[in-house]
Amino acid sequence: MKMLIRFGIIVYLAFLFVVPTAKGQIRKEIRIPDILGYQTLKCDFHMHTVFSDGDVWPTVRVQEAWREGLDVIAISDHIEYRPHSEDIDADLNRSYEVAKPLADQMGIVLVPAVEITRNMPPGHLNALFVKNANLLEREDWYEACVEAKEQGAFVFWNHPGWEVQQPDTMKWWPEHSRLLNAGILKGIEIYNDKQFYPKALNWAQEKNLVILGNSDLHEPSQQQYNGEDQKRPMTLVFSLDKTEAAIKAALLDNRTAVLFNDTLIGDRRFLTPIFIGAIQLKSKKLNLQNQDIKYLQIYNNSDIPFKLQQRQPSVGFSCPKEIILPPNRTVSIELTGISDEVAQMTTLKMFYEATNLITKRGENLPVNIDVPNK
Amino acid sequence: MKMLIRFGIIVYLAFLFVVPTAKGQIRKEIRIPDILGYQTLKCDFHMHTVFSDGDVWPTVRVQEAWREGLDVIAISDHIEYRPHSEDIDADLNRSYEVAKPLADQMGIVLVPAVEITRNMPPGHLNALFVKNANLLEREDWYEACVEAKEQGAFVFWNHPGWEVQQPDTMKWWPEHSRLLNAGILKGIEIYNDKQFYPKALNWAQEKNLVILGNSDLHEPSQQQYNGEDQKRPMTLVFSLDKTEAAIKAALLDNRTAVLFNDTLIGDRRFLTPIFIGAIQLKSKKLNLQNQDIKYLQIYNNSDIPFKLQQRQPSVGFSCPKEIILPPNRTVSIELTGISDEVAQMTTLKMFYEATNLITKRGENLPVNIDVPNK
Amino acid sequence: MKMLIRFGIIVYLAFLFVVPTAKGQIRKEIRIPDILGYQTLKCDFHMHTVFSDGDVWPTVRVQEAWREGLDVIAISDHIEYRPHSEDIDADLNRSYEVAKPLADQMGIVLVPAVEITRNMPPGHLNALFVKNANLLEREDWYEACVEAKEQGAFVFWNHPGWEVQQPDTMKWWPEHSRLLNAGILKGIEIYNDKQFYPKALNWAQEKNLVILGNSDLHEPSQQQYNGEDQKRPMTLVFSLDKTEAAIKAALLDNRTAVLFNDTLIGDRRFLTPIFIGAIQLKSKKLNLQNQDIKYLQIYNNSDIPFKLQQRQPSVGFSCPKEIILPPNRTVSIELTGISDEVAQMTTLKMFYEATNLITKRGENLPVNIDVPNK
Amino acid sequence: MKMLIRFGIIVYLAFLFVVPTAKGQIRKEIRIPDILGYQTLKCDFHMHTVFSDGDVWPTVRVQEAWREGLDVIAISDHIEYRPHSEDIDADLNRSYEVAKPLADQMGIVLVPAVEITRNMPPGHLNALFVKNANLLEREDWYEACVEAKEQGAFVFWNHPGWEVQQPDTMKWWPEHSRLLNAGILKGIEIYNDKQFYPKALNWAQEKNLVILGNSDLHEPSQQQYNGEDQKRPMTLVFSLDKTEAAIKAALLDNRTAVLFNDTLIGDRRFLTPIFIGAIQLKSKKLNLQNQDIKYLQIYNNSDIPFKLQQRQPSVGFSCPKEIILPPNRTVSIELTGISDEVAQMTTLKMFYEATNLITKRGENLPVNIDVPNK
Repeated sequence: MKMLIRFGIIVYLAFLFVVPTAKGQIRKEIRIPDILGYQTLKCDFHMHTVFSDGDVWPTVRVQEAWREGLDVIAISDHIEYRPHSEDIDADLNRSYEVAKPLADQMGIVLVPAVEITRNMPPGHLNALFVKNANLLEREDWYEACVEAKEQGAFVFWNHPGWEVQQPDTMKWWPEHSRLLNAGILKGIEIYNDKQFYPKALNWAQEKNLVILGNSDLHEPSQQQYNGEDQKRPMTLVFSLDKTEAAIKAALLDNRTAVLFNDTLIGDRRFLTPIFIGAIQLKSKKLNLQNQDIKYLQIYNNSDIPFKLQQRQPSVGFSCPKEIILPPNRTVSIELTGISDEVAQMTTLKMFYEATNLITKRGENLPVNIDVPNK
Repeated sequence: MKMLIRFGIIVYLAFLFVVPTAKGQIRKEIRIPDILGYQTLKCDFHMHTVFSDGDVWPTVRVQEAWREGLDVIAISDHIEYRPHSEDIDADLNRSYEVAKPLADQMGIVLVPAVEITRNMPPGHLNALFVKNANLLEREDWYEACVEAKEQGAFVFWNHPGWEVQQPDTMKWWPEHSRLLNAGILKGIEIYNDKQFYPKALNWAQEKNLVILGNSDLHEPSQQQYNGEDQKRPMTLVFSLDKTEAAIKAALLDNRTAVLFNDTLIGDRRFLTPIFIGAIQLKSKKLNLQNQDIKYLQIYNNSDIPFKLQQRQPSVGFSCPKEIILPPNRTVSIELTGISDEVAQMTTLKMFYEATNLITKRGENLPVNIDVPNK
Repeated sequence: MKMLIRFGIIVYLAFLFVVPTAKGQIRKEIRIPDILGYQTLKCDFHMHTVFSDGDVWPTVRVQEAWREGLDVIAISDHIEYRPHSEDIDADLNRSYEVAKPLADQMGIVLVPAVEITRNMPPGHLNALFVKNANLLEREDWYEACVEAKEQGAFVFWNHPGWEVQQPDTMKWWPEHSRLLNAGILKGIEIYNDKQFYPKALNWAQEKNLVILGNSDLHEPSQQQYNGEDQKRPMTLVFSLDKTEAAIKAALLDNRTAVLFNDTLIGDRRFLTPIFIGAIQLKSKKLNLQNQDIKYLQIYNNSDIPFKLQQRQPSVGFSCPKEIILPPNRTVSIELTGISDEVAQMTTLKMFYEATNLITKRGENLPVNIDVPNK
Repeated sequence: MKMLIRFGIIVYLAFLFVVPTAKGQIRKEIRIPDILGYQTLKCDFHMHTVFSDGDVWPTVRVQEAWREGLDVIAISDHIEYRPHSEDIDADLNRSYEVAKPLADQMGIVLVPAVEITRNMPPGHLNALFVKNANLLEREDWYEACVEAKEQGAFVFWNHPGWEVQQPDTMKWWPEHSRLLNAGILKGIEIYNDKQFYPKALNWAQEKNLVILGNSDLHEPSQQQYNGEDQKRPMTLVFSLDKTEAAIKAALLDNRTAVLFNDTLIGDRRFLTPIFIGAIQLKSKKLNLQNQDIKYLQIYNNSDIPFKLQQRQPSVGFSCPKEIILPPNRTVSIELTGISDEVAQMTTLKMFYEATNLITKRGENLPVNIDVPNK
């Protein structure tokens, strides 16, 4: 029974009830340096609402994103799987429409999106920046993908190794090559929900796909990610501006990284300036001498920890084999002079690699720490 | 467009998607003693879903309740206010139907309920244990209430002092007397969302109404109660069993208390055994002597803190003017002998009142602590 | 029995044992803006070690200070009260000597200090920047104070309202006037341990005394301050540099504020720029219209919360009566246009006072928030 | 300069200063079941104070132990390494004497102890229950050990694999066999500070040594164990009573287990009843049917987590391959009927092993969970 307001008596109360607004909420910013002239946008391009198989009204996704420090989300409700349809009767653009006003109020960029949900192959694909999701409802999956392309959508392959669809081995199918060659498939999730797909990172590197990491939220966010050991993942987009157009351009230009739990994966050209931008040396010139011990204080001014392992010894002095730089903390490390020459060095060079910052080649990011000495 | 499963292709996947289940969730029990032969059930009798003006699918309310240590909930969607009706087309029993299977799976008692949502007077009323909520949709509010009674419902007045409906003063209207005298109105919320209504406690005491404290959740629970200073409230029901029938009997027999933040309100006959059941003295006989200091260790084996203030001095020895007993902690307090007689006392009696345990008369609960001495 | 190393056998192990070093520790910086060209140094000028009546070796005070984000400490062991003297045999400079090497290693400024510990009057006084604490051991308390002055010490009155010494009323004695007029007494603790002395703030304002807030630590820091409701207090010193000389100059120039729990007390000329430096508006031009609602996002980029109450209504629009800005969080507040003129305003002016920022006159700090509109 | 109280003037204040007492402290109990008629005592038998190379006054060790939920400690200051002796002049029993009154006040059993601190071999050895530690100061280490034995001490080998003393390989020396055969060496630390020594567990099993795990605290406890990933270890002693005599008897009877971070190591005869005592099934008869899914709720009523892996499949139904039971939480796990017979089973048997409960043989503890079904 459709009933919005009945009996006239209740009319004036309509404005008095709580509608989802920005009022009274608290946001915890995610502190990651801006780099290379870009803004580092925190994005989640894959989530669901009651309009497909999710558990929340679309506005909740906007509220969660705002509270949790994100900048950009895409509500990607399934086209072909709508288990609440007995109760919810709406078209494929509806969840976007419902969420958009609140997103605008709260300064969250809401990218229109939808999930093409098929058997393997091709599996599940998200289409971002769709103009009219209704037109992606096709019997033939390839036609749905072509329609996405014609609407200017950015299409990526979701959870490519999901064991339900790839139980024996994680396989790249001819259908994916077809999509790739047709310029339809542009990206791939290397992380989804709480699962990392390393093979997808290889494919991204080989086939020049944009890497993404998304939550695929169905439940409320704090129900799906409820502990310290499992954090909500995000796609970092290095964008010229916080607008849909600039974000799309950044995706097409392959300017992303993926952050999940304490791991950051991306091209060296992004990871290195993030590390450099986050780290501050809090000591003056060390004046290290032979057989002398001095303490260097390093402040990590970001929300990403750095787990460093020595990749080669330093010259003239010794330093720790391992350094952990927790987020928003200063750490004190010990340097010991082991030669007469060290007193003459202007800079002490330390050679590490960050075991939690992984390049697209799958390697630990090499980092140098240069310490003013004399 | 109604679409549950299309294209046949997707059919088999239907069983592979995540449906809300009990699997993999973690519950934090709420530790409050069982008393007087009853089970202390933790209940929330007032919340909403997308089926009226809430933001979550009904199953989320069950999941939240389970995770947060509750035993019993009632999903009380509004009859007359259904702002999502443009998208959601369902009758008034639907949210109960959707949530019931999961509630059964998880051992949560789901009480069928609905909220009669009217102007003041009479304002908003919840009807619990309704048999068919659809029949409560009436033009005349009183007829809706009579129908509730005829279905054997337990009816209580929600947020009676809500400033939107009672802007100038919190008033008991003739309409409420009418409901009370007709044996329809049986209870009243003294706490709703994050608001305490002390006047409602007075009314409850004078008019013999059952006191309740409920969340009135609209958002996800962890969004509405997101800090240490604001916790989800609950109605404690002292019930013979964890079944709908026993809970109903307990409500009709006025066996409730209300817990919000760190305050517990209820009849002395419930508060006193809760305090006694929670507190354990962890010291042996003190053997206190004149001019001697001994330490008494008190363990609070519950999740409710106790904030004690001395209401009269002890005889023969001195003890702290104030004692805070945090939940799940042992506290050490100092007793000093100030007379020769104290060495002969078998028991040292201490006289306190708990400033966070309030009786229905609005007074601090007097508590005695008796310490074995000799 | 004096025994450092015996039996020769153990000699080489001496270097292998753990000596207190800076290695492996983690520091949580305290984020408060630097203002007016000064560095905001976080200081604690009152604490004890085993060398008087404290419980820790002096190096622990340095380690705690470093870990907890402080910049400057003074170890002010008692002159006249040394209850461990049966076991510990050392002069009055010894605790400084023991702590100094580690303080230098860790970049903590350790100010030499001592506590003149007498009956009331004058009570307990700290002398900072002493050159030789041994010379302050005098039979006559006034001579001890004169000696302090002659050594160039900065003397302040500790816990002036401590009920043990001022049981009936908190009184300013003739002896204190004598010290003040002699140019010996320069400062006063308005906060000590977990106690605020508002009367001392009045005296500071009237008599132009420098205000300080210190821990008076005896136990390990995390034992004395072990909960969220009780935090370690500190004296903020607005200093040209992080050196003893600059800190002394800042104290003599009355450039301090006191931070305890969530309250900050100090002269307006310091509080206002702290507030301004901490707050960032995270919204662009609001473009507020009549009868329109817009959301303003305010980011508190410091570790101090701000609790704002509206001190007068705004013109042309309404805004919340109360705003809480938690540390390191963004808050969203609602502004509603209530006039046609508001659309023309370039800036929307909001008039608040911070109830947790108290001026030396004992008043809430008035703060304006100006919002770009058009 | 020795000075306790001078100038008479200060005398009365002596009683007004804070002396370490039990007053005002909060203790967090450690919840581990009592088993087999014994009390499960939480013990730390290895720590230091300013009287050797530690950083705290002995009373702090008592306060820490009480606050952190321990029952028994031993302050084992070094005999041969006393780096503070320039300032602290006391005999080897002094730290015990200083701590004992507070331990008695607070109900902490303080076992007299001392650490024989030598090169390898034999390395460092703790002697518990010494009667006069001074007599253990000998030139010859073996004579020191003989003296310990003659005083009825319980001697154990500390951090046997400490890389400073065993840099190449962790070796059992002839000297240790000598001590063992002489009935002097009775125990061994398998865990010390933050280091686990698995080889020591083998030796314990082969040579019938009592296993211990201790903190070897030097700093304040919350400075040494300051994160979630590193918790203070403890030796669990299953004792008939909380007295020195009963604890000694329990040690001699090899009734210990070792708890560090989330791992518990001990004989099966202790681990199994701990697991059984901690786990409560919170569901009634499951009534599982073929092709049916039911949810079993398991409550872990202890502070030890249990990490279970399936060691063999169940008959007639399937259950999770892995179950994590966090401390003080209820977990819901899914059981699926896969045969017609399951409906007839009275009990469903599940076969797991706890990967964090390790037997003395170094194996995961096998655990069965039997679920009432019909």
